[in-house]
Amino acid sequence: MAYENILIIGAGPTGLEAAKGIADLGYKVILAEKRDAMGGTPMSAGYAALTPDMRDAGEAMQEMCVAVENNPEVTIMLNTEITGSTGEPGSFHVKASSHGEEIEIEAGAIIIATGFSHFDPGRETQKYGYYEHDDVITIVDAEKLLKSGNFVRPSTGEKPNRVAFIQCVGSRDRQIGNEYCSKVCCGITSKQAIEVRELLPGCKVFIFYIDMRMYGYWENEIYWPAQEKHKVNYIKGMATEVIKKGDSLVVKGEDTTMRRPMEIPMDMVILAIGMEPSEGTKQVADIFGVNKNKFGFIETIGGALNTVSTNVDGVFAAGACTGPSDLEDCISAAGAAAMKSIAAIRKATILA
Amino acid sequence: MAYENILIIGAGPTGLEAAKGIADLGYKVILAEKRDAMGGTPMSAGYAALTPDMRDAGEAMQEMCVAVENNPEVTIMLNTEITGSTGEPGSFHVKASSHGEEIEIEAGAIIIATGFSHFDPGRETQKYGYYEHDDVITIVDAEKLLKSGNFVRPSTGEKPNRVAFIQCVGSRDRQIGNEYCSKVCCGITSKQAIEVRELLPGCKVFIFYIDMRMYGYWENEIYWPAQEKHKVNYIKGMATEVIKKGDSLVVKGEDTTMRRPMEIPMDMVILAIGMEPSEGTKQVADIFGVNKNKFGFIETIGGALNTVSTNVDGVFAAGACTGPSDLEDCISAAGAAAMKSIAAIRKATILA
Repeated sequence: MAYENILIIGAGPTGLEAAKGIADLGYKVILAEKRDAMGGTPMSAGYAALTPDMRDAGEAMQEMCVAVENNPEVTIMLNTEITGSTGEPGSFHVKASSHGEEIEIEAGAIIIATGFSHFDPGRETQKYGYYEHDDVITIVDAEKLLKSGNFVRPSTGEKPNRVAFIQCVGSRDRQIGNEYCSKVCCGITSKQAIEVRELLPGCKVFIFYIDMRMYGYWENEIYWPAQEKHKVNYIKGMATEVIKKGDSLVVKGEDTTMRRPMEIPMDMVILAIGMEPSEGTKQVADIFGVNKNKFGFIETIGGALNTVSTNVDGVFAAGACTGPSDLEDCISAAGAAAMKSIAAIRKATILA
Repeated sequence: MAYENILIIGAGPTGLEAAKGIADLGYKVILAEKRDAMGGTPMSAGYAALTPDMRDAGEAMQEMCVAVENNPEVTIMLNTEITGSTGEPGSFHVKASSHGEEIEIEAGAIIIATGFSHFDPGRETQKYGYYEHDDVITIVDAEKLLKSGNFVRPSTGEKPNRVAFIQCVGSRDRQIGNEYCSKVCCGITSKQAIEVRELLPGCKVFIFYIDMRMYGYWENEIYWPAQEKHKVNYIKGMATEVIKKGDSLVVKGEDTTMRRPMEIPMDMVILAIGMEPSEGTKQVADIFGVNKNKFGFIETIGGALNTVSTNVDGVFAAGACTGPSDLEDCISAAGAAAMKSIAAIRKATILA
């Protein structure tokens, strides 16, 4: 017996886009989400504006949620966590805990869209004092401040005059085992730098970086305006430590271009934390027997030529659960996963 | 009258993947290709290995071509150029010149997958002497040499001892109007640097760059091995000129990290040329009334949340015709375009 429906795990941008896409092709979707609301990390973390087009994140996610909520082909299950799975392509029997009750979901194919976690900058190798100093925050915290329109120093409630961003916190870092580049932090930092400069024209903004990675249009839509129109100061250099000095912070490190050590006073320091696989991603991967790479992200097969299939027939993975991804990556991969998962259930139905 | 088939224009990786995907969902595809063979630029330009997994490009493309050739749902039309279009979503009447004959193609939806062109490094602002010096080549020329396994100086047929790559040729360059980053050149250059070092262990390899952009796994799969295992020398600096001096070349410029001018002798110089919209992309966009951005690439609508729809209902664009894209971008976008184009013909059929 083959089932003609698809179970999507995770109702963030990727899961929502895949659900909409599958429903538009006339197939039934069960959309299971661990949290009590849809919209994924952009919603739960309270992102302000999307990159690179600066659209209001809450509004954009809301629109995606509504498209799925009003869709007769989609069954939404919030507060639902996957706990086990048996079966095969075409007829998976998935166990879940839904609102605290044990249930079983039958599905012809699975799409894992469990997203990522933000790197915790309090890890032992991190010398930036995230948990020690109130005025050291992350780009995620900064999103909330920017969304509120009240961008102030947490320690005093006053507007900062000097703000520094530190790039590659938890990325490109062998000491912590995250050798990969998280891909989006340079762009998001530069977007936030523009937003800070717009809110607080008197505030100086510095970005300490190894390489500024703003590929494709992010280069001309964000990086150049940040420098030229908004006078953001980009400093090639590694910040090694943040210390408290009187009422303010001091960023210590090395200015690579000037080839000299630096010690620069700041009112606020914002850490551009990278992406890590979420605990949910690792658990779900293990439940379905899907391979993870050495970082814990889900491994897709086929190199560049297959971005969503996994080692398990009928189980697909899309978006940031497969590795650092921007929103465009997630949305495109969602489409690819929708397509391939429908193809899988069609194949299973023909064989059944 | 609504047609239940989809016309895909361009049989490169994007077009092939979309064709396979649509066929797998049971819909008919007409795949129109201007060239006399499928496989797109990776095939026509003779790419050696794919990035980042180093798979043989010819083999990989061949596999994609075979999947489409043997598919009863796909009609392949080579030597076919689109010349006009009338109609609307669900019933497009497309004029084409196929093997020199005027024909008309009826289709319910259109996917434009016309790819990109390599930047021509002979433009007036370019001081690298591509057309003057035999030993100045591009990364595209280098692919052919690497594929042949005989990586030698074009001027002498001898193995080079010193090879330099120059990044951002035709990208991130306001003088020529290409302010965007071409996204893939850093990774392809680093891949080629590894290949050169493997073929010629005695050859020193230098890469002159502004920022090394190796996002996601390219960082740990290519960038780190290039430096550590293969001892490629990365030099942050702008090469401004390449001149001939006796039997060899001299790269002039500024070493940003050392803060001094440089003049380094080389046997070969390889220009990491970027991506531009192909002439075919611009023509096809105009035929269908699809918006182009200021660079001439096709503009997709919906910011990060819709990577394939255009301003014209029923006409989609995917892959490098929409801007600098790596293979993974193309493959994912192909899936998204397949999904949305089928949804479009389903909608048109219901309304008809």
